Amino acid sequence: MREGKDQKSRPGFTRRQLIDGVALVGVGAGLDHVLGGSARAPAAHSVPPASTENFYGLRQAGIATPAQDYLHFAAFDVTSDAADDLRGLLEQWTAAAARLTAGELYEPVAQMEDEPPVDTGEAVGLSPSRLTVTIGMGPNLFGSGGADRFGFARLRPPELVPLPPFQGEDLDPSSSGGDLCVQACADDPQVAFHAVHALSRIASTAATLRYTQQGFGRTSSTSRSQGTPRNLMGFKDGTDNIRAEETGAMNDFVWVQPGDQPGWMAGGTYLIARRIRILFDVWDAATLEDQQRVIGREKLTGGPLGGEGEYDPVDLQATAANGELVIPADAHIRLGGPRANQGQRILRRGYSYSEAVEPGSGQIDAGVFFVAFQRSPSRQFIPIQQRLAASDALNKHTLHTSSAIFACPPAAQPGGFVGQELFA
Amino acid sequence: MREGKDQKSRPGFTRRQLIDGVALVGVGAGLDHVLGGSARAPAAHSVPPASTENFYGLRQAGIATPAQDYLHFAAFDVTSDAADDLRGLLEQWTAAAARLTAGELYEPVAQMEDEPPVDTGEAVGLSPSRLTVTIGMGPNLFGSGGADRFGFARLRPPELVPLPPFQGEDLDPSSSGGDLCVQACADDPQVAFHAVHALSRIASTAATLRYTQQGFGRTSSTSRSQGTPRNLMGFKDGTDNIRAEETGAMNDFVWVQPGDQPGWMAGGTYLIARRIRILFDVWDAATLEDQQRVIGREKLTGGPLGGEGEYDPVDLQATAANGELVIPADAHIRLGGPRANQGQRILRRGYSYSEAVEPGSGQIDAGVFFVAFQRSPSRQFIPIQQRLAASDALNKHTLHTSSAIFACPPAAQPGGFVGQELFA
Repeated sequence: MREGKDQKSRPGFTRRQLIDGVALVGVGAGLDHVLGGSARAPAAHSVPPASTENFYGLRQAGIATPAQDYLHFAAFDVTSDAADDLRGLLEQWTAAAARLTAGELYEPVAQMEDEPPVDTGEAVGLSPSRLTVTIGMGPNLFGSGGADRFGFARLRPPELVPLPPFQGEDLDPSSSGGDLCVQACADDPQVAFHAVHALSRIASTAATLRYTQQGFGRTSSTSRSQGTPRNLMGFKDGTDNIRAEETGAMNDFVWVQPGDQPGWMAGGTYLIARRIRILFDVWDAATLEDQQRVIGREKLTGGPLGGEGEYDPVDLQATAANGELVIPADAHIRLGGPRANQGQRILRRGYSYSEAVEPGSGQIDAGVFFVAFQRSPSRQFIPIQQRLAASDALNKHTLHTSSAIFACPPAAQPGGFVGQELFA
Repeated sequence: MREGKDQKSRPGFTRRQLIDGVALVGVGAGLDHVLGGSARAPAAHSVPPASTENFYGLRQAGIATPAQDYLHFAAFDVTSDAADDLRGLLEQWTAAAARLTAGELYEPVAQMEDEPPVDTGEAVGLSPSRLTVTIGMGPNLFGSGGADRFGFARLRPPELVPLPPFQGEDLDPSSSGGDLCVQACADDPQVAFHAVHALSRIASTAATLRYTQQGFGRTSSTSRSQGTPRNLMGFKDGTDNIRAEETGAMNDFVWVQPGDQPGWMAGGTYLIARRIRILFDVWDAATLEDQQRVIGREKLTGGPLGGEGEYDPVDLQATAANGELVIPADAHIRLGGPRANQGQRILRRGYSYSEAVEPGSGQIDAGVFFVAFQRSPSRQFIPIQQRLAASDALNKHTLHTSSAIFACPPAAQPGGFVGQELFA
């Protein structure tokens, strides 16, 4: 099973337009018209269709798209207070993202040797790798502290509010929040890096990078075509996730619907990101039985306690011979699942991360960069997380260290740009 | 071209011994004898041969092995002063590394539900992914400051000395040095993470993690079967690298030879690691011509200035019509190449990295985690780097922020362990 993963190769998979460019002008001509020459080569016949995801459409890609293997997430602070600058930034990001996801270099401008390269070049020769670029807007873009920087206060989605504090979290402000976000996902981490690199260069006059987060080993499946991956706790993660094929659930729980407020968000969704560190010194010392009771599932099979196969029904009422609940009262799947939460579900699309060792303790700072999409944070993530923060057995083994919320508008149409609704 | 890359899939590529285990005891039996049951399943018929690298042999894997796509590097401080503890650690690391590289779970001990899992489980269901585990020993293991912790001072390799300070570097001590290192490379980053996770759990009583470093997008090829990748500067990197097929060069420049001192290192090599940050604010603003003159190569083709194809000969004497050198006097390939360095070469095996954004500046901390193997640091890396640190045009665009040196002994034989020569 390949699950759509590209056969990454260096340098076999040369980008078509680069080949065309070379054929057109000859290698001896240097990079003139080559790094920037792709606009003149319209068809994409030699890029395997499975290696590209559409950028334009009704909804932004990178949400219902079958989860790619790698994430490069970036949050930005907008440094200009001029709405025109923000508009220009979003226009340029849209144009760049459309080209990058098609596997093209990002700007159709002739390249001169006496200018900085238009494209930084690290993705030359790599497959498009199913790159998606998903753009979101943070709460402060719609005004904060009585100020209305861009005149968007009247457009603020009621659902786009800073998340309330949750019990037990220990957030790093410098890797939380942000005015804008770019979620780049791809089956090659260098392609995802390149997208963030390109967009941060474009942003330079209007916005600066606030933080980035790399992720690997996706911790959820978002399509029935994908098996369930394991997170760094060794458990299958996301067995009960919404799958893109569940059209009804996607409309109920993920996509903002016509009639929801504000109207300009219809077809969009809200992204919530939380960096969740696994406290390996505690977790790795827990017995297998304890680990399974914390999650509510068998470690090997992923099946619910009391069941067998991964997708067996979760029986929350079942009791053992001693009268105790088979799935404990504080098990993660009980408290986070729809039956404890008025039937609410969220679309999880997170990744594992691993960063520096904590100086002194020798503990690895690794875990899950949790990303979830939902139609209504106030009815979905916030109450679910409040319930989990209060009682989840997993709290002893994890620590939330970053937090952010963004509104992801509907996708751009060709000729338009992401966020265009704000400037109507 | 696949270049040996596994078709990673979740969960299609189930580890054979896990399947056997399940078949043997049945899923309903839980993890007993399953997470630990692999020792009873000797053959490896359903693991594709191309997805595993040998662990035992003459030389440690992960050096001449065709570079995998991902790195998880870890350095450890040994916390015990007892040679027996160090010996026990190396014995256990060897046994674990042998099993992990074969795609097996790491300890053949029956797993009980009332004990912590022997294997943490995050690699269950993943391909072995050509995992290699390379073990090295830092200078302080052989005594420092007049103390001889383990009685190894008489065995110290003269070549294993702390690197001298180099002009312009700005090293972070907490991510430099170390008593022991583990270089885990694999075509799946989760498999590499798992190896470091497993070895750091084993180490817990004798050693603690000092730092880790993740890498992606290998920045060198080490085999003629691999094309030249691009680093995050967008240039092809390692065109002139030693390839494993060059037996003579490998013996001259990489492997410690019989007759070299000390004798116990014959078949081993010295690993030098340097985290080299790219100063993107400077680099990305440089013109294409300047970038090409800094490196000495064409950005698109990788060919030397004045040449055309990537592998064209590097003509260091060529001058332009105006009398200036075509490859400038301070070009990286001139100063780092063998002709400027008494014919010396090194085996580069580095990776790109991307970490946190620098607070305030919005600059990405990303670059190259440079790893090189050589027979003689005193004749190879040290003088080469002194020359580069003094004059390389690249210095304006990069900053060395970590540094380490390790002696990698020869490989273990079945029944033996890496570093056994120290305990003879």
